[in-house]
Formats: sequence, structure tokens, C-alpha cells
Amino acid sequence: MNFKPLGQRVLVERLEEDTKTASGIIIPDNAKEKPLMGTVKALSEEVAKEGLLKVGSQVVFAKYSGTDVKLEGKEYLILKVEDLLGTIE
Amino acid sequence: MNFKPLGQRVLVERLEEDTKTASGIIIPDNAKEKPLMGTVKALSEEVAKEGLLKVGSQVVFAKYSGTDVKLEGKEYLILKVEDLLGTIE
Amino acid sequence: MNFKPLGQRVLVERLEEDTKTASGIIIPDNAKEKPLMGTVKALSEEVAKEGLLKVGSQVVFAKYSGTDVKLEGKEYLILKVEDLLGTIE
Amino acid sequence: MNFKPLGQRVLVERLEEDTKTASGIIIPDNAKEKPLMGTVKALSEEVAKEGLLKVGSQVVFAKYSGTDVKLEGKEYLILKVEDLLGTIE
Amino acid sequence: MNFKPLGQRVLVERLEEDTKTASGIIIPDNAKEKPLMGTVKALSEEVAKEGLLKVGSQVVFAKYSGTDVKLEGKEYLILKVEDLLGTIE
Amino acid sequence: MNFKPLGQRVLVERLEEDTKTASGIIIPDNAKEKPLMGTVKALSEEVAKEGLLKVGSQVVFAKYSGTDVKLEGKEYLILKVEDLLGTIE
Amino acid sequence: MNFKPLGQRVLVERLEEDTKTASGIIIPDNAKEKPLMGTVKALSEEVAKEGLLKVGSQVVFAKYSGTDVKLEGKEYLILKVEDLLGTIE
Repeated sequence: MNFKPLGQRVLVERLEEDTKTASGIIIPDNAKEKPLMGTVKALSEEVAKEGLLKVGSQVVFAKYSGTDVKLEGKEYLILKVEDLLGTIE
Repeated sequence: MNFKPLGQRVLVERLEEDTKTASGIIIPDNAKEKPLMGTVKALSEEVAKEGLLKVGSQVVFAKYSGTDVKLEGKEYLILKVEDLLGTIE
Repeated sequence: MNFKPLGQRVLVERLEEDTKTASGIIIPDNAKEKPLMGTVKALSEEVAKEGLLKVGSQVVFAKYSGTDVKLEGKEYLILKVEDLLGTIE
Repeated sequence: MNFKPLGQRVLVERLEEDTKTASGIIIPDNAKEKPLMGTVKALSEEVAKEGLLKVGSQVVFAKYSGTDVKLEGKEYLILKVEDLLGTIE
Repeated sequence: MNFKPLGQRVLVERLEEDTKTASGIIIPDNAKEKPLMGTVKALSEEVAKEGLLKVGSQVVFAKYSGTDVKLEGKEYLILKVEDLLGTIE
Repeated sequence: MNFKPLGQRVLVERLEEDTKTASGIIIPDNAKEKPLMGTVKALSEEVAKEGLLKVGSQVVFAKYSGTDVKLEGKEYLILKVEDLLGTIE
Repeated sequence: MNFKPLGQRVLVERLEEDTKTASGIIIPDNAKEKPLMGTVKALSEEVAKEGLLKVGSQVVFAKYSGTDVKLEGKEYLILKVEDLLGTIE
């Protein structure tokens, strides 16, 4: 894919429900702020230099964050690093 | 064209719908915040020095950002770099 | 567990009511802002470097802070360090 | 003229509609935020030192910015540099 | 006591009304923002390093600041240093 | 006069309407934000050190800024430097 | 008196109306924001180091600023330095 995020942003592909269950992370229904999971597909130069994330990192992020985008027929999410809660290693 | 942006701004020409489809980026109808695409036509000195963008860069930006302007009969958008989500390379 | 917080965040497991009573910390019913207790299960690199918290630290935090998450069937809370009021040593 | 702006400010004389058309910049009627044009008549010391603007610079600025002032019978606008979108060279 | 505040926080025990009167500080009934008094029982590392407060310092603080907490059957207040108006020496 | 402003403040005496007309500055009735004129009577140490203003400087300032004060029977205005739009030299 | 302000704060005793008139400062009734006068009784270490104020300084401050406190039967005001408009020398 040829999308390159700018600033403190990463491009993330959401995990399917099935995959999510397999990885052992389930968001409780009564959560105040439901986190979601995905896979990092691209990082800005700034974010890559910090070395905490790479293409393929599994990330957890807050529900109402980011911007939806469809690239070559597939849906993605552009997220700011500050909206990423953590990684699943 | 003789327009030179100031501060952290760039001048962007929006992509036509047809071009957008060809490039493979489609914004989903149910997106919370729909990104849009365009081509950088001019950069401020500040932005040029940072080296991440140049005249001709294809950029994706959030929908309600920027200021519309018509220069020599053509419509453009003046955008702040922080409102650019990424580039299509 | 394989969750790694990002930024100024820690992963916390809430203390059961019984444990809380045993530790001697009880939150008054008429408190303006009720603190809660838990155990740190994971720290971001940033937080670990500061050296004030470690896996196993007992922390007190304000009630409406953090994000709930369920990892491998267990509920946790992702909290920012600024929302931690103190530690029980 | 003997007015000297302070801080990050410039004194601007608005362009007449006719001049604006001749210069090739026309603001679309349906613009979200209509930019306007003018000529820089005076700069603060701070702004002069930055070297991006000078007396005579043609500037484009957002509509609801600045303070109106009449000096020796003529109307001007006092604008902050951050409200200038760009220059026409 | 084994509570250790984090960040710019201190643990404070409120003074009894009788003690307060004895110390000579009385808050007027018609005060816009009523200060209250107490004794510092624990300080974070950050606050201790600044050297302006120590365990035993008598402090005056604004009324609606801090978080109530009960430790080993006794009520305390966790306060940020910026909410402390002064000390009684 | 023995009033000394603190911080980024100056003491200003408003110009009479007659004086204002003579100096050639007239504020248009339909102005969005009407500037006013006056003479600097005292400066804080901070402002004096910056060297852009002195006792006697004629200043233009935005209408709803500053604090009115009467000193030895005469009305003045205490203004922050950031609220001064410029000087008349 | 044994009260020591913390941070950017000073302890101020309000001037009586009679004293205020004698000093020549009268606040106009139609003032947008009425300043008040008082005498500095104690300073924090931070403020003392800056050297612009001392015990005994006559200060002018904006009306709705500060916290009322009664110390040994007398009313005082705890004010932040940024709320002091100037001094009467």
C-alpha cells in the first residue's frame, strides 16, 4: 500500500471479531470507553523514528478516535499515537 | 501560480471524483470524519524546509478543514499541515 | 500477559473489595471524588524509566479515570500516570 | 503614515473589488470561510525581522479576523500574522 | 502510614475545628472561597525535593480541592501542591 | 504619579475626542472591534526593558480591554501589552 | 503573623475606605472591572526572590480575585501575583 501517514499518525487495519477473540482480548459490554484492536499498516517518519511501533504491531485504541479511510477497496483507520492505549506483543 | 502560503500552510487543489477512484482511495459513506484528497500546489517556506511535502504531493485531509480560495478562475484549498492526515506516494 | 501500555500509561488490575478492606484503605461514602485501588500489571517504557512504579505496585486512582479492557478473560483498567493519586507501600 | 503595529501584527489596506478581480483572486460565494486580500502598509519590528513580509506585500487573510481602524480618513485593518493565509507575489 | 503520594501531591489530615480556632485562623462566613487547614502527613518524591513542605507542615488550602480517602480508619485528603495557598509556621 | 504597573502592563490615559480627531485617527462606526487611543503614563519594569514603549507613547488598543482606575482624581486604564495594537509615532 | 504563602502568592490586607481616599486612588463607580487596594503582609519565597514586591508594598488588584482568610481575628486576602495590577510607591 502506498499511504504514508503524516505527523504523529499511524494507519491501522481493524481486527475482525474472530481474530480478536482468538488473541484473548475482549472488551466488556459495560465498559465506559471501549477499546478496539488493529494492526499497524503504515507509520509516519516521526513515529517510525521513536521505535515503539512498527508495521505489524498489534495496537489497542479508544473507540471514538481516528478517521476512517478506504484504500484500494479496504477500510482503514488513521490514528494519532496519543490515542493508542498499548500494544499486544 | 503566484500564491505563497504563510506559516504552517499549503495550497491544495482538490482531486476530481474520477481521479480519486482511479487512485484507489474511496471514503466510506458511513465514515465518522470523511477524509478528502488533493495535490499540493504551493508550500510556505516553513513547510518546504521540513522536507516531508513538495509541489505535486498527493495529500489526504480531514473534511471540515481549510479555507476555500479561487485563484485565476480555479478553486483551491489553503490547509494547515496539522490537518493533513497523510500522503499517497 | 502480553499487553504493553504506550505513552504515560499503566495497566492496572482492580483490587477485590475484601482485599481492599484488609489493606486498610476504605473510601468514605460521602467522598466528593472516590479513589479506587489496584495492582500495576504492566507499564509503558516511558513510565518504567521514571522508576516510581513497577509491576506489583499498589496504586490509588480517581474513580472516573481510565479505560476498561478484558485480556484473556480478566478485566483490567488502562490508566494514565497523572490519574494515579499515590501508592500503598 | 505614522502607525506602527505592535507584537505579531501588520497594518493592511483592503484591496478594492476591481483590483481584486484584476489580480485573479476571486473568493467563491459558497466558501466556508471567505479569504480577503489587501496590501501591507506597516509591520511591527518583530514581523519585519522575520523577513517574510514587507511594506507592499499583497496578503490573503481569513474574513472575520483583525480590527478595523481609520487613519487620516482612510480605513485599514490591523491583523495578526497568524491570520494571514499567504501572499500573492 | 504507608501511603505515598505521586506527582505534585501531598496527603493532608484536616484540622479539627477546635484546633483551628486555637491556631488563630478562622475563615469568615461570607468568604468567596473558604480556605481550610490541615497537617501534611506524606509527600511525593517530587514535592519533598522542592523543600518547601515536610511531614508536619500546617497548610491552608481552597475548599473544593483534593480527593477524600480513608486510610486505616482515618479520613485524609490528597491535594495538589498548586491547591495549597500557604503554610502556618 | 506614583503608580507602577506589574507584569506585562502599562498605565494609559485615554485621549479626549478632540485630540483624537486632530491626530487623524478615527474609528469607523461600523467597526467590528473599535480601537481606542491613549498616552502611556507608566510602564512595568518588564515592559520598559523591552524598549518598544516609553512614557509618552501614543497607543491604540482594542475597546473591551483593560481595567479602569482613578488616580488623584483622574481616570486611567491599566492595559496588558498584548492588548495594544500599535503606536502612533 | 506566621502565615507564609506558597507558589506565586502574596498575603494582602485590604485598605480601609478612608485610607484609600487619602492615597488618592479612587475607583470609578462605572468601572468595568473595579481594582482594589491593599498592603502586602507576606510573600512566598518565589515572589520574594523576584524582588518586585516586599512586605509593606501597596498593591492594586482586580476585584474578583483571591481567597479571603481570617488570621488571628483579622481579615486578609491571598492573591496570585498575576492578579496584582500594580503598586503605589
